[in-house]
Amino acid sequence: MSADQLRDTQNALRAQYDDLCAAGLALDLTRGKPAADQLDLSEPMLALPGEGNHLSPEGVDCRNYGGINGLPGIRAIFGELLGTGPDRILAENNASLQIMHDLTVFALLLGTPDSERPWSQEPGPIKFLCPVPGYDRHFAITERYGIEMINVPMNPDGPDVDICAELVAADPAIKGMWLVPTYSNPTGYTVSEQVARALVSMPAAPDFRIYWDNAYAVHTLIDQAPEPLPILDMAAEAGNPNRVYVFGSTSKITFAGAGVSFFGSSTENLDWYSGSLSIAKIGPDKLNHLRHQQFLVDADGVRAHMARHRELIAPKFALVLDILEKRLGEAKIASWTEPDGGYFISLDVIDGTAARTVQLAKDAGIALTAAGSTFPYKKDPNDRNIRLAPTFPPIDELAVAMDGVATCALLAAAETLAERDS
Amino acid sequence: MSADQLRDTQNALRAQYDDLCAAGLALDLTRGKPAADQLDLSEPMLALPGEGNHLSPEGVDCRNYGGINGLPGIRAIFGELLGTGPDRILAENNASLQIMHDLTVFALLLGTPDSERPWSQEPGPIKFLCPVPGYDRHFAITERYGIEMINVPMNPDGPDVDICAELVAADPAIKGMWLVPTYSNPTGYTVSEQVARALVSMPAAPDFRIYWDNAYAVHTLIDQAPEPLPILDMAAEAGNPNRVYVFGSTSKITFAGAGVSFFGSSTENLDWYSGSLSIAKIGPDKLNHLRHQQFLVDADGVRAHMARHRELIAPKFALVLDILEKRLGEAKIASWTEPDGGYFISLDVIDGTAARTVQLAKDAGIALTAAGSTFPYKKDPNDRNIRLAPTFPPIDELAVAMDGVATCALLAAAETLAERDS
Repeated sequence: MSADQLRDTQNALRAQYDDLCAAGLALDLTRGKPAADQLDLSEPMLALPGEGNHLSPEGVDCRNYGGINGLPGIRAIFGELLGTGPDRILAENNASLQIMHDLTVFALLLGTPDSERPWSQEPGPIKFLCPVPGYDRHFAITERYGIEMINVPMNPDGPDVDICAELVAADPAIKGMWLVPTYSNPTGYTVSEQVARALVSMPAAPDFRIYWDNAYAVHTLIDQAPEPLPILDMAAEAGNPNRVYVFGSTSKITFAGAGVSFFGSSTENLDWYSGSLSIAKIGPDKLNHLRHQQFLVDADGVRAHMARHRELIAPKFALVLDILEKRLGEAKIASWTEPDGGYFISLDVIDGTAARTVQLAKDAGIALTAAGSTFPYKKDPNDRNIRLAPTFPPIDELAVAMDGVATCALLAAAETLAERDS
Repeated sequence: MSADQLRDTQNALRAQYDDLCAAGLALDLTRGKPAADQLDLSEPMLALPGEGNHLSPEGVDCRNYGGINGLPGIRAIFGELLGTGPDRILAENNASLQIMHDLTVFALLLGTPDSERPWSQEPGPIKFLCPVPGYDRHFAITERYGIEMINVPMNPDGPDVDICAELVAADPAIKGMWLVPTYSNPTGYTVSEQVARALVSMPAAPDFRIYWDNAYAVHTLIDQAPEPLPILDMAAEAGNPNRVYVFGSTSKITFAGAGVSFFGSSTENLDWYSGSLSIAKIGPDKLNHLRHQQFLVDADGVRAHMARHRELIAPKFALVLDILEKRLGEAKIASWTEPDGGYFISLDVIDGTAARTVQLAKDAGIALTAAGSTFPYKKDPNDRNIRLAPTFPPIDELAVAMDGVATCALLAAAETLAERDS
């Protein structure tokens, strides 16, 4: 493109953008939240378990205190779906994030079963590996407690294992790694069996832990979700039985704010966690476990339920990809993932324009996740990545918002290219 | 009593005790759990909020993510009952103990708003005052994290303030104090306004915190529960607005394992807590807040509900007191509290016989809270105190169990007196 052409393009985009601003939009693509019609799928749960139905199948009065590990029935369902089996999984309250947080806090103050001392008493700062782009709420936990975060590339088959292996072998202060193994946030990438085996096998500190946050294990946009890897068995076979913490929840299956969370790991890790947790509480909300058990019935019940979610959200993902292709395909100023599941599309614009794109969108009334959010310390080294969350807005608003985002990305690119030119 | 009389008494008690053992009992007086008939009072909640009813009065979709502070309606009800007002209180999940735990953990790792440094980085061990006898689960939190516990006497009007004031004035490492201000666990004592004022006024470290665990604020056995003290206002008036953490829950109002918990404090403390909590989770289970709000309606609704609990448990307390008086009144080997509310009766046997009494009861199939449990480190310096929890067993079992406990206390006393004599 000549300098003149570039200036013309920029002017045309500027005019488009001014029209966008004049439309007075107020649209929100920030968070991976289910839309109201998705929540409606679980509406019958609001009347469950129902009067007179307070006993679990085992005869536990779910109204009273007790049972730190949660109800066996709901654990069995998600033990199957998360690949842990029914015995190496606990069920908790409405936030798997809190389990991740608490495990980190327990390790900081008390140490894991494999730690020489509490993490907070290590001579230097401890560190976590962070596949990027990744999940901002993971990074917020480690940042909060002063745990140093090290970026590693997230590839379509999982984290770059060569880099990971080299880092952890060289530095025993690396105590953990964040990871969303299925339909990763925000890329939609899924960890391959080969990468998983390398991650559980690589030499590392004895108390190195992989936070295997399988939040989207069953959240498929295609006919069949991938089978969950038997990651706990794989770790045990590799001689590192305590290395992996498996997480999951029903937050994006039933009710985002009132679901059940799960933690799977080795028996030693589970005993350590529930021992620490039982200092803080007497047990989880078993009535909510029972309610979920009654509603979901079994693993196939969950799969059938997820198919209904898919019907509602697959068109939204298709729409976003379609607009991206139509508006940005030719200009070659962006690339994006085309996920088979999960809640996000990861959009890479040309280097140095992500923050500008998000700012332009904001000024036009379209809220995007802040640029940089998908990286530790909110610092995208290339200022390139934008997380798109298609599920929450109604589809007509989504179309308007995405078209607007495309305009912003194009305008930001044109501005930057013009600057470089001048 | 002569040595002969004592021997005869001991033999008679031994025979009684042998009969008790022969009865093959399996009774449990260990925990302060509501009985099934108490839980039945809230059975209609099991069908709430009901299909189609997922919006709060403010229009919040309670099924989705968000709202770290909890629903305003339920906070207003308990703001009134706990004396904080509607604006200085948050609602959380099913365990106020977890809020206490988390506040302690946040202070250890990050420090409070008034701390010079995180508590875990203080030069020496930090310390908590523990009115005794007290609540074992409080003591378990501080023990777990290596916080030194200092016994202070719990009097009928609250902790001995002269001793407390002297200790905290002399030692800035004293950072906290456990306290159940109304119908205390296990004594049933209630803190007077005068003692409360002294506690919030006494000179102490700027980050000294009173964990004002008002678990039994409305759990009265008489016509009217005491009005809650406006303890946050009292602390502010004394120039220590951040000193007090107020806790409460519906655990012994609705469902013990599936209730709502509350945390009241100064705005600065609340912001600090919710800021830390929002790193760990997106929000509490708002559907359970809505369910409670619909069922309890308002503060008077709670009071009316508690009157129904009272009808069920007051006869159990009366029975226990009656048996204690009949079996132990004359022998003068024990004293006990006669609470106007709460969940416990505190029984003091003669020094050196509590552990033996509990062991004798255990061998006869009657489970009591372990001797020493009401003291830090499970060490009752006088081996004297036994916590009785009358609510959970059916009343006929309670009568058998308490009669057995009396036999055990008498036998343990006779053994000890005989030993001293010999």
